[in-house]
Order: sequence, then structure tokens, then C-alpha cells
Amino acid sequence: MPRLDPTAPGALGPLATGLGLRCTLAEGGESCCLVTVGEEHQNPQQVAHGAVLYALADTGMGAALYTLLDPGELCATIDVHIAYYTAIRTGQLRCTTRVMHRGRTTAGLMSEIHQGDTLVACAMGSFAIFIPSGRA
Amino acid sequence: MPRLDPTAPGALGPLATGLGLRCTLAEGGESCCLVTVGEEHQNPQQVAHGAVLYALADTGMGAALYTLLDPGELCATIDVHIAYYTAIRTGQLRCTTRVMHRGRTTAGLMSEIHQGDTLVACAMGSFAIFIPSGRA
Amino acid sequence: MPRLDPTAPGALGPLATGLGLRCTLAEGGESCCLVTVGEEHQNPQQVAHGAVLYALADTGMGAALYTLLDPGELCATIDVHIAYYTAIRTGQLRCTTRVMHRGRTTAGLMSEIHQGDTLVACAMGSFAIFIPSGRA
Amino acid sequence: MPRLDPTAPGALGPLATGLGLRCTLAEGGESCCLVTVGEEHQNPQQVAHGAVLYALADTGMGAALYTLLDPGELCATIDVHIAYYTAIRTGQLRCTTRVMHRGRTTAGLMSEIHQGDTLVACAMGSFAIFIPSGRA
Repeated sequence: MPRLDPTAPGALGPLATGLGLRCTLAEGGESCCLVTVGEEHQNPQQVAHGAVLYALADTGMGAALYTLLDPGELCATIDVHIAYYTAIRTGQLRCTTRVMHRGRTTAGLMSEIHQGDTLVACAMGSFAIFIPSGRA
Repeated sequence: MPRLDPTAPGALGPLATGLGLRCTLAEGGESCCLVTVGEEHQNPQQVAHGAVLYALADTGMGAALYTLLDPGELCATIDVHIAYYTAIRTGQLRCTTRVMHRGRTTAGLMSEIHQGDTLVACAMGSFAIFIPSGRA
Repeated sequence: MPRLDPTAPGALGPLATGLGLRCTLAEGGESCCLVTVGEEHQNPQQVAHGAVLYALADTGMGAALYTLLDPGELCATIDVHIAYYTAIRTGQLRCTTRVMHRGRTTAGLMSEIHQGDTLVACAMGSFAIFIPSGRA
Repeated sequence: MPRLDPTAPGALGPLATGLGLRCTLAEGGESCCLVTVGEEHQNPQQVAHGAVLYALADTGMGAALYTLLDPGELCATIDVHIAYYTAIRTGQLRCTTRVMHRGRTTAGLMSEIHQGDTLVACAMGSFAIFIPSGRA
């Protein structure tokens, strides 16, 4: 089975693609994901809903960790912590993610989300690494 | 200005409405939010993307805290921590949220997300409470 | 090897014992830990240092999860999130912890710390469950 | 009132001093804190109790943010998230902390804890910034 490429069109799956997320880099335990925030991403206070930034971080963590998996391994989010620093109405957000620690069965990741030079949010995540059992 | 009702159609804003979230209860520091997970909510592994569950929790926290705000006050997410226990492919998710502590300028909240009787995820959040300055 | 009892004197190890922590219950995925806060637990602002409450939660999580482990299994903290609601100067703190989810290789836990009827802090933790390799 | 210096002996308060923590730098929104882990810091599995690393991070965050406060302002931990990557038995731990965002009433911080070149743990924290009312 050829290895999936997180930067290929549609590779992020329906939710992330539907939100307009793109992955422009996934290599060596790092990733970069983008979204252009429009009105459809806003909350009732006309700023980007936290879930859009969260989707960037969670998706970016999966893409970054994916590059360090061995053949046959998958990963899944155990938990993510995200903190918001600046409210954003519209425009491009850039999420850069790095694997901080790759253990045998867990990994730790960190994401920073910027708009231009402004740090908008930071996130930390813990992921499980496993070999799926019982494949059809 | 009449008080907004988080359970009114469209009251959750474009992002949450676009994801299909509904708020069925917001009262006394508690809320209940629902979403019916379909293929459009999935990640590449055909399970609900964590961001959908996150959107339920973050939205539910805002709705629950909103019921305890004084006139003129608004709230905003400082940070949220979410942990995933069970992968879900499709079907209804129910997020119940409770304000654990309502301080003068910050609040702490907790959400539990169930599918039927199964606990799918838990989240904790810290929110800022403030009176917006300089309204146009 | 007889199973350790987290409520036995000294069973919590040097750090927790040195801080004055006691575990009064560890059973069926739940635990209760206590500490009596004195001046030795304070920070420069004369309130209990957050690390004392953290020690209660982390220790209580280990004790609660321990009761659900199979013979030969150990557990270790992956991450903990703790939020503080009320500053405490002195007096007894009671931390009740519950395993929310026990998976095969990870678990999710939640702790509430009270002083009397006042909720002082809440915490969520993710733990790894593993069988130690290479025992001497 | 002369400004406190977090690097002065005893300035960290009884709990941190009792654990052997030292603050060697606090300047421009950054701090460095150290502890030499001994048997007194261990948990029942003979590794450094997570609360010792937590104490480094929480204390380091307070020290780093303190350098950015205006006269009359104080800060307090809202919440901290800490993830553990490597178990440590003994030896020196070095915690470097940076203020990521300094808002008017809240701040976001990040800490990395190393032993030598090994990343042992990472933490993110949210702090409240306030002017104490009703001083005696």
C-alpha cells in the first residue's frame, strides 16, 4: 500500500476539507496547515470559532506525527490543550506543528497558530501510536 | 437589547450551525448541545474528527456560561482541554456542560460528551468574563 | 508479589509523603487523597502553591487507576490539566478522583479538590498503562 | 515598595524553597528554574514525581510573568497543562519559561523542562493578571 501524503488534495478527510483546511508541509515530524477564515467560520461574536483553530492544530498534529510512523502504525489523538491569545475575524491562519517527543506508544506535539506575525493560539497534544488489530 | 437565546435557530453562529450543532438547553449554568455525526464530520480514518467534538464542548461552554453573565458582560474562551475516550463513526453525540466555578473575571467549565450511554470525551475550559469597551 | 495498597503508610513514595499527602481510599477506580495545608505549602503570596494541589491530583489519579490494573501492569502519567478556582491559605484539602475511561493502553481520569464544600480545583489526566519490559 | 526579585534566596516561597527549587533568571518575560532531583522527590516507582516538574513549571511561569507586570499588579495561575516525555530518576532539571502572550487581564506561558539535552516535559499555562483590591 503506498504511503498517504497529507498534502495531497482531500487527504485530510471530509471534515478538514469541508472547513477549507490545507496541509502544505508534512515532513520529518513537522507540518504546516492553513485556513482562510471567512464568515462561515465565525461564532456569534463575529470572530473565528475556536473549533476552526482547534481543527488546524489537531489536523496538523496528526500530519506531523504521521511522518514519523513506521509502516503499519496509526495514530489517534489522546488529548489536546489549546489556548487562545488573539481573536481573529477573517484572513489566513497558519499552523506550524512539531513532534516534541516520539515514544513507542505515545507522542507529544506542539502547535503554534499565527496570522502574519501575530501569535493567535498555541496547543499541546498527546497522541497514541498503535498497530491496528483485525484488519478486514 | 433583548437577551440572546442560545437555543434559538442560528444563535450559535455560522461555524456551529454549519457543522449541524444544536443547543437544546442553556439554563442556570448548564447546557446541552447535540450533533448527528455523518460522513462529512469524519477524518481520514472514517471516524468523527476531534474538532467536531471540540466544537460541541467549546460551544456548549459558551452557552452554559452565557446564562450566568450579567447584562453587558461577554465571555471568551481562554483555553480548553479535551480528551478522547472512544472513536465514533456516525450517530448522535450529546454534550452536557456545567459551569464549575463562576468568578468575577474568569470561569471554569466541564463538558462530557456521550453517545447513548458511552462516554466519548471529556473537556475542561477556562473562560474570560469581560465588559466590552468601545462599542461602535 | 503481593499487591501494593496505596492507603498503606509510605505507599505514596517520598515526595507525596514528604508533602504530607495521605490516601484514604483506593477502590474500584476511585480514590480519595488528603493534605492539610500549612505555611510550608505556601507560595510567596501566602496561599497554597498550585503544586500541592497538583500533587494531590496526580497522586490520586495514580492510586485510582492502580485499582483497575491487571497483574504485571504499571501506569504512568502522560499529561495532566489542572484549573484553580479558589485560593486556599491553610486547612484540609480533599481530592476525589475517578477513572472516566479505562482503555487497553491508556486511561482518562478526573479529580475534584474541595475544602469543605468549596470546589477549589479540578483536574483531568491521561495515563499510559503498560507492562514493564526487562525487569531485573 | 521595592520590587521583588524572584532570583533572591527564599523569594519563591516555602513550598518551592522546601522542594529545593531555585530561580536563576527572571527577565523580559522569561525565566529559568532549577532543581536537583534526589530520592526525596521520587514516587513509588523511583522516578521524579510529576509534581516536582509541575512545581518547576508553575513557579517558572509566575517568575516569567512577574517581570512583565505593572506596579501594583499581581498574577495567579488559572490553569496549567503539563505533559511528561521522559522519566527521570535523579539529577538536575532545568525549566525554561516564556510568556507567549501578555494580555491586559490574562497571559499565556510555555515551559520546557530539560535534563541535559533531553526534553523531559512541556507545559502551557494561563494566568490571570489583576490589581488586588482591599489591601489592609
